[in-house]
Amino acid sequence: MPILTLLTDFGTEDEYVGVMKGVILSIAPVVRLVDLCHQIPPQDIRRAALLLSNAVPYFPPDTVHLAVVDPGVGTERRALAIRTPAGTFVGPDNGLFSWVLAEIPEWTAVEIREPAYRLPRVSSTFHGRDVFAPAAAYLAMGLPLERLGPRVEDPVMLPPPRLEIRERALEGEVLYADRFGNLVTSIGRLFRERDRLTLFPAFRPSGPTPARVFPASAARVILAGREVHGIRRTYGEVAVGELLALIGSSGFLEIALRQGSAATTLGVVPGVPIVLYT
Amino acid sequence: MPILTLLTDFGTEDEYVGVMKGVILSIAPVVRLVDLCHQIPPQDIRRAALLLSNAVPYFPPDTVHLAVVDPGVGTERRALAIRTPAGTFVGPDNGLFSWVLAEIPEWTAVEIREPAYRLPRVSSTFHGRDVFAPAAAYLAMGLPLERLGPRVEDPVMLPPPRLEIRERALEGEVLYADRFGNLVTSIGRLFRERDRLTLFPAFRPSGPTPARVFPASAARVILAGREVHGIRRTYGEVAVGELLALIGSSGFLEIALRQGSAATTLGVVPGVPIVLYT
Amino acid sequence: MPILTLLTDFGTEDEYVGVMKGVILSIAPVVRLVDLCHQIPPQDIRRAALLLSNAVPYFPPDTVHLAVVDPGVGTERRALAIRTPAGTFVGPDNGLFSWVLAEIPEWTAVEIREPAYRLPRVSSTFHGRDVFAPAAAYLAMGLPLERLGPRVEDPVMLPPPRLEIRERALEGEVLYADRFGNLVTSIGRLFRERDRLTLFPAFRPSGPTPARVFPASAARVILAGREVHGIRRTYGEVAVGELLALIGSSGFLEIALRQGSAATTLGVVPGVPIVLYT
Repeated sequence: MPILTLLTDFGTEDEYVGVMKGVILSIAPVVRLVDLCHQIPPQDIRRAALLLSNAVPYFPPDTVHLAVVDPGVGTERRALAIRTPAGTFVGPDNGLFSWVLAEIPEWTAVEIREPAYRLPRVSSTFHGRDVFAPAAAYLAMGLPLERLGPRVEDPVMLPPPRLEIRERALEGEVLYADRFGNLVTSIGRLFRERDRLTLFPAFRPSGPTPARVFPASAARVILAGREVHGIRRTYGEVAVGELLALIGSSGFLEIALRQGSAATTLGVVPGVPIVLYT
Repeated sequence: MPILTLLTDFGTEDEYVGVMKGVILSIAPVVRLVDLCHQIPPQDIRRAALLLSNAVPYFPPDTVHLAVVDPGVGTERRALAIRTPAGTFVGPDNGLFSWVLAEIPEWTAVEIREPAYRLPRVSSTFHGRDVFAPAAAYLAMGLPLERLGPRVEDPVMLPPPRLEIRERALEGEVLYADRFGNLVTSIGRLFRERDRLTLFPAFRPSGPTPARVFPASAARVILAGREVHGIRRTYGEVAVGELLALIGSSGFLEIALRQGSAATTLGVVPGVPIVLYT
Repeated sequence: MPILTLLTDFGTEDEYVGVMKGVILSIAPVVRLVDLCHQIPPQDIRRAALLLSNAVPYFPPDTVHLAVVDPGVGTERRALAIRTPAGTFVGPDNGLFSWVLAEIPEWTAVEIREPAYRLPRVSSTFHGRDVFAPAAAYLAMGLPLERLGPRVEDPVMLPPPRLEIRERALEGEVLYADRFGNLVTSIGRLFRERDRLTLFPAFRPSGPTPARVFPASAARVILAGREVHGIRRTYGEVAVGELLALIGSSGFLEIALRQGSAATTLGVVPGVPIVLYT
């Protein structure tokens, strides 16, 4: 049974997600549906692109990922289907997939145009239901990508979040706060082996050579002008109520507050600068 | 694999939805569960009835729709199972299904009474678990409707939302705000073909003759005494921060604010009048 | 198809739950995933333990329940897999399963240690993904429990919520408010047969002898010094806006407000004392 994931900013108060699932199951009765997230802040393409790039590596490569954060619905923006060695992607051409694609050497994209693979009536406000859900369902059932429409060579690519590599420092920004109030930053992806940290900058084509290798124990972290406890392994290494830095589960530097919310306590918002001295 | 959808006002903070799924899968191990929505405002039967009528057309007709918004749980209100050409419905007899039924010419309803198709112990506060989930599961497994109990000819029918058809105007009301702050109104269902709009009033038996046909370009929309940009196709047709009217994905007139929330900006609540001059 | 439930405090704004599902389906493609709840207040082990003990009886006994509320992630706390006649459990050793285990006479627990049943790279912050999801998936596919690691005889056991059985009274505390604002208390589990109430104290080994038998009609309920309408069967038995006590769907005494929120109206918080005079 093929897997089909759903990622939207539709929330869960309305019928929108359920309706997309009805459309999908009407076309592809055996597909397995997995909700990635429906709580993307309305129209926040960057947040969705980031979430997708963190989640995709954990799904089988024959998964179809349907992503609908679509402020341009009804305008001339293209509808895309993209096949890659890491998964197949369906959604609007507004940069949603750019951070997944940035790290994948090969992909084939088409514009979804063929009326046979849409609902009979296409609204101007809900392409998730009328265009993207049917296309994703047909792809999950084995439809060759090329049947959906003509090749696209230039999908919209978002610039990656700020990450500047200085002689003794890595400079980035706060991306968002997760549910626990942890501040996820753009300094990543960092891989740790004992005390040794290795940086492969995220969302950029990367070869086998890391951009920086440095000891975790010597690192200093300054967030919005304030020093926090350097890079720890676990929350338990600082006292309750204290700030610490650690490597989050997707390899980004995070600022956390033990048994509390760093976001609420610091009042920090996305875009605030962070510096990691190496 | 039969599809079984769930629609409740249980929220997702408690175990109630998960418990219903445990009950269903214990009876019908092969059913496919789809969450329609669990964020119906507590006890808001009208909101649930509307959501259901918008979602049902997108599911296969052999789907079982389980809906539990049940302020009268434990009282004498009946428990219903209803078979229609558009789907099978299970839930309390309080009007939940009235707007689905209003548009369907034929249906058969029974009162769920047969103890063999309930949990052994029926509580007085959670019939979703003890009565409705088992009945829906047995129906999904192929149980004939009549086995559940005696025929019901008079299920509770809610009056439809306000929609008055005047000589040059359609008068309705705001029904609710969706997650994006779009104000969904009772003026619908409207179908568009190029500039031509056709109204088939929702939640009423409708024949092939529309109630009104008029050009979109000439329409004027007054919400709470304030004129908004007439009927547009897409959000992109007005400037950021401006109000516009458009036909929502289920055919109802909506008021939206480009890249913002019409609901928050206007402070409009359900029941506020809206007039569409045709 | 084996059932695998998920219970976390991860919320639904981030990719964490979706990623766990990707890991599970990569290992166990045929498993049926059921979300029990992801809205446990961050790090609230007691709330999760209670929810789990209420939900487990409604699932088939071959279900695998994966629970991740894990403030000690990355520390020395053990990772557990537990097999019982009521289900199989996977999660951190912090008391999450203690209220399920308290009522089950036989169980076998092991510490999850075997690297073959983890992801190749184990982070220090997301064992839900790297340790618990793989273990649960392998168990759902039939892996013998013992293959995961050595026996554990002393899993962490939380003390049960307060319930004191006096000569003419049962004394307990408010545990939490559910979505409807109903206050769920620790006085339970109560079973009703006509007017007769029988108490089998929850989360304790219980034999066939009840701790108390008394008539519902004679009971008086005092919450935070205030008398509420005694034990009713349904919300409809008191006037709109009035408080009542009833036996909740899991057998605990609850305080509700008809067509309103008892929690909001009373301003009562967890821990507030409640007395039931029998």
